[in-house]
Amino acid sequence: MKVVGVDLGGTEIKIGLVDKENGIEKKISLPTEVSKGTEKVVQNISEGISSISKGVKIDGIGIGSPGSIDRDEGVVRFAPNFPEWKNFELSKAIGSIVNLPVFVENDANSFALGEWYFGHATGLTDFVCITLGTGIGGGVVSHGILITGKDGIGTELGHVIIEPDGPLCGCGNRGCAESIASASSVARTARELIKRFPESLVLKTAGGIENIQSKHVFAAAQQGDYMAQMIVEKAVDVLARLIGGCIHIFNPEKIIIGGGMSKAGDALILPLRKRVEAYIMVSFRNTYTIHASELVENAGILGAASSAIYALRGD
Amino acid sequence: MKVVGVDLGGTEIKIGLVDKENGIEKKISLPTEVSKGTEKVVQNISEGISSISKGVKIDGIGIGSPGSIDRDEGVVRFAPNFPEWKNFELSKAIGSIVNLPVFVENDANSFALGEWYFGHATGLTDFVCITLGTGIGGGVVSHGILITGKDGIGTELGHVIIEPDGPLCGCGNRGCAESIASASSVARTARELIKRFPESLVLKTAGGIENIQSKHVFAAAQQGDYMAQMIVEKAVDVLARLIGGCIHIFNPEKIIIGGGMSKAGDALILPLRKRVEAYIMVSFRNTYTIHASELVENAGILGAASSAIYALRGD
Repeated sequence: MKVVGVDLGGTEIKIGLVDKENGIEKKISLPTEVSKGTEKVVQNISEGISSISKGVKIDGIGIGSPGSIDRDEGVVRFAPNFPEWKNFELSKAIGSIVNLPVFVENDANSFALGEWYFGHATGLTDFVCITLGTGIGGGVVSHGILITGKDGIGTELGHVIIEPDGPLCGCGNRGCAESIASASSVARTARELIKRFPESLVLKTAGGIENIQSKHVFAAAQQGDYMAQMIVEKAVDVLARLIGGCIHIFNPEKIIIGGGMSKAGDALILPLRKRVEAYIMVSFRNTYTIHASELVENAGILGAASSAIYALRGD
Repeated sequence: MKVVGVDLGGTEIKIGLVDKENGIEKKISLPTEVSKGTEKVVQNISEGISSISKGVKIDGIGIGSPGSIDRDEGVVRFAPNFPEWKNFELSKAIGSIVNLPVFVENDANSFALGEWYFGHATGLTDFVCITLGTGIGGGVVSHGILITGKDGIGTELGHVIIEPDGPLCGCGNRGCAESIASASSVARTARELIKRFPESLVLKTAGGIENIQSKHVFAAAQQGDYMAQMIVEKAVDVLARLIGGCIHIFNPEKIIIGGGMSKAGDALILPLRKRVEAYIMVSFRNTYTIHASELVENAGILGAASSAIYALRGD
């Protein structure tokens, strides 16, 4: 099976020709041009698809889109990067031009599907994926099925409340996992604390308060920086409680961490593995493993492509 | 489809002839006689099954058993009420006598299946069941599949850690939902606090510290008793956080509460409905409802029977 995966970003569209067995066979990227309006964006996507699939028999198109997606209808309810898109029928718009089935999936679910077909979860039936970026997303496959719930809005792992008295979250609640342990929250906490720890390596490595990102915090923590270690410990603790809950609920074989913050690698994964053990019943010991995604810069294209593969799988 | 449901208790075995469409058509109960040894218990179960199904074509037997169950193999790994049973092949033992397929399922999963075929969840594809008894059990159906995980030990909702600094739980961790909000934990907390609130109605209604059960706490809370209300509020808060998490994860249509403590009815369900709203994202509002089970004293037989119906469903 060959599909096209479209990783739709606010500034760049990455498009890949993906074979279910061989992975990415070709990829291109082009500007999104949001400012030129919806029609132009749709045209860019369609032209990219046509150009990459010229002369190749394609079974379908998968689009990984940020924002709130109606996956059954292929509709983008809203997306922060595309302010014009309110209940925009993306799948229909592209499908009518390229004349192929088009599937739209949110980032976290397509990440999980990408791990399933091309990453750590190959061949598994039960695994949990968590993306750590601006927010925290969840994608879960249980008994060989992508869990989305009755309205397709399930596995919102980032908004499970871990600390009811914790920081205010963008969703309006307090202490969601995302409000403490997402890449942006780790960076925000560092920016807040730096006034009390002006000697922290974080400031030096980032070169200014406003430049602080989660990667600077993890790098400084690795070098023994006190403030950075404090922030990493807190994030790891919150993630461990979230993951512990998921282990009790899904009894998965693997937990796979993706998103920008997963690039911290061992600096994140090693303490996480240890801490999760504190939050699970003895009977779950050694039933799972925890990994950082290895799809890196291809995760978006492979995830989008995998959404089409999953939708077309016909099992 | 007709099956026999066996609700296996430490002192009593309840057996029902159950029709998938009509529910319980006949039921009997007989003593378990654990003290007379495994062979006698197996004989009692088998004779009960034969007697209730005389002259009726039966498709299978479902046994609801407490303890840790290997559901695929029909093996009881261990069960507190049956100290002799260590990795006991219950399904094989009964099956070889009655000559029918026998399925063994744990309490919480069979409760969920019972709700699916005969209770609040009829016709649904996505719902979450929570039993509040000595412990807290979970049974989840998502996308029309009973979620059990890769080793069959999933949906251990009672051991999701809600308060890491909370009371010590039987499992060895602290602050599991079960350690605060199970029927026994509610009763235990009342027995602990009664020394500081000797005037509490709970003591009067129960007629002695050692007699205190969760029902006395809920009854006293309804009458405005301060200590009882404090305990109920805490249990409700912990359950609401657990349920809020399940809503974000499973996006279910219903949450159904069973087990002894669910008999508190509105005294539990009304405050629970309110509190859950504090722990979910706006987008999940009005996507679910919360109910107390109405299967009451038939929940055990119907649940056990439903395990067989589910296993035999052939879809």
